[in-house]
Amino acid sequence: MGEVNATERAGTATLEHSVVLDGDAVRILDRRVFPARTEWVVARTPEEVAAAIRDMVTQSSGPLYAACAGMALAARTARGLALADARTRLEAAGHALATARPTNAHPRDAVARILAATADAASTAALVEAVEEEAAGVEREYREAGVRLGRAAVALLPERPRILTHCWAEAYLFGLVAAAREAGREIEWVATETRPYLQGARLTAHSLRELGQRVTLVTDGMAAAALSSPRGAGTGPIDAVVTAADRVSMDGCVVNKVGTLGIAAAAHAFGIPYYALVEAPDPAAPTGADIVIEDRDPREVLEVLGRRTASPLVTDAWYPAFDLTPARLVTRIATSRGAFAPDRVADYFTTAPDALARPLPHAGSASPVPGA
Amino acid sequence: MGEVNATERAGTATLEHSVVLDGDAVRILDRRVFPARTEWVVARTPEEVAAAIRDMVTQSSGPLYAACAGMALAARTARGLALADARTRLEAAGHALATARPTNAHPRDAVARILAATADAASTAALVEAVEEEAAGVEREYREAGVRLGRAAVALLPERPRILTHCWAEAYLFGLVAAAREAGREIEWVATETRPYLQGARLTAHSLRELGQRVTLVTDGMAAAALSSPRGAGTGPIDAVVTAADRVSMDGCVVNKVGTLGIAAAAHAFGIPYYALVEAPDPAAPTGADIVIEDRDPREVLEVLGRRTASPLVTDAWYPAFDLTPARLVTRIATSRGAFAPDRVADYFTTAPDALARPLPHAGSASPVPGA
Repeated sequence: MGEVNATERAGTATLEHSVVLDGDAVRILDRRVFPARTEWVVARTPEEVAAAIRDMVTQSSGPLYAACAGMALAARTARGLALADARTRLEAAGHALATARPTNAHPRDAVARILAATADAASTAALVEAVEEEAAGVEREYREAGVRLGRAAVALLPERPRILTHCWAEAYLFGLVAAAREAGREIEWVATETRPYLQGARLTAHSLRELGQRVTLVTDGMAAAALSSPRGAGTGPIDAVVTAADRVSMDGCVVNKVGTLGIAAAAHAFGIPYYALVEAPDPAAPTGADIVIEDRDPREVLEVLGRRTASPLVTDAWYPAFDLTPARLVTRIATSRGAFAPDRVADYFTTAPDALARPLPHAGSASPVPGA
Repeated sequence: MGEVNATERAGTATLEHSVVLDGDAVRILDRRVFPARTEWVVARTPEEVAAAIRDMVTQSSGPLYAACAGMALAARTARGLALADARTRLEAAGHALATARPTNAHPRDAVARILAATADAASTAALVEAVEEEAAGVEREYREAGVRLGRAAVALLPERPRILTHCWAEAYLFGLVAAAREAGREIEWVATETRPYLQGARLTAHSLRELGQRVTLVTDGMAAAALSSPRGAGTGPIDAVVTAADRVSMDGCVVNKVGTLGIAAAAHAFGIPYYALVEAPDPAAPTGADIVIEDRDPREVLEVLGRRTASPLVTDAWYPAFDLTPARLVTRIATSRGAFAPDRVADYFTTAPDALARPLPHAGSASPVPGA
């Protein structure tokens, strides 16, 4: 790809639209090789979409988009069928998409919502229309939630914040950038590379550059040095750590990509706030201890992008995919209904859902911020 | 090299003797490629030894050993010279070796000590003998200091400790393993890979395996997960974090490989002690703020072992080689004269040097531990 002057092309990021429904196929950007190579996997059936999810062609927010596109694709290919057959076809597609990976609940929830929207369809045409409409609605609302929680986070930040982030927040990252633009704020970023899979170096830093943001890359172990201002001289002082959360328990513990915990502990040690981004806390997890941490293949610790880096004598490694940051190390949790102290995050469910429907007042305005 | 049953070959580690004076040449193990390849650079003059130091063929404790071997080599090649010429030859060699790298003070100190030992030499033969003797003495005492501070550290640990370590402690690591063996203790290790240069994955884990130790490798960002027991289930609960210190200020701040600070902060957050190993604190650094942190070429953050890993759009990175852990995050500093609380580390200079000359009592013994 070579060098690009990212500040001059502050348009959209490639990963903002990494799943595209295109006629009778779903094109999915292959994150296993991006951005070294920009290649798309073409799926012509919902089952091929499910296989792409299973094979990690896409992850993070990608499986939600892929599930929506896969259901819409199933509806299109069911156009000529009788209503009962069309329903059967959609249910089979939904099953394949919802069960492609065991831990990411997004496809399951999206499929359930889309199928529920077809309950009253009295004809195949009505069924197809209901699926296409609901699939588009699920994706649109998910992206809107990203912008809303972005607004809640921006309201916590100073005028020109320098943010340290870890791993890849995808829709939440894009939402935060969009919310900051709305409010006339300019963010400067420090991104960790995020071993073992290097999502920070490959996806986050790349997307931020495409969006015209300033970003400095560090290894995971350098985050604490950046946070221990004034020694963070290489990046400038950090105003806040901001990461996505894969899950937040009702008592305010944050589960996110492994490495988040150490950064949160360092931020705490140096009095820098840590804000976690999540659409909503998880009522199925009353406490952090209720969240199971997935261990993945330890071979990835011994390798970097498929190439052995550890001594050949080393046989034992451990790869917890996530870590759990206790509520005491979290400053605020920014949700689509506002920011909450970790011990009050359950208040999400008694807060009006439209609190952050409108843009924040522009930088410099003294208006109060709704829901923050 | 392939798989080796390390527990059956608990002999010496390759890196314990990585600089060898061999006739009229110095052989230096090339750490830039070790352990993927075991290659030795052969230096036939002190200037070639200095060049090897400058080119990073060896680092950590290596430059001290190389400086000693380089001076002994200079003495051997000066055998046929008149006394004045032999002195000139040695001083030139000493200058080349002492100035090969700007920040590592070991070669400078070793050269000064060796040259001082030649002051009374009345003949070239006496000069040569004095240099060889003092060079051997400097190296021997340095290794002994490693064992002494290892004893001070072992005295802080439980019977069967599980230790998390970062980067590559070289002589201190070998000293700690030797001291534990003396005392009949068995250590289990968790090693971080230590980006960007992967010393943990390449040197520490390799050497520990050669010494028959059990070691589990994690990425730098996984250290906090291991420390947040009982979630450290993949490694078992950690008893202590133990690292070398490149320098310790007189007020107990620890400068070590970048990444140490974040691990110390995580250990502090979970109530796990952090012990730093150093021969002695540095009287030239009254406080941590007096220690300059070296920034290195940020390209190494964008690459792994020479291969680009970050997005091609990323242009900015920061690579602080070290970080500074404030005294409040350090539990004890284990020196060659015993272990000190960080705010008492200056007591090193009023403590008897031979406090740890003898092995610790064997595990289970109730004898008091000298100097600990």
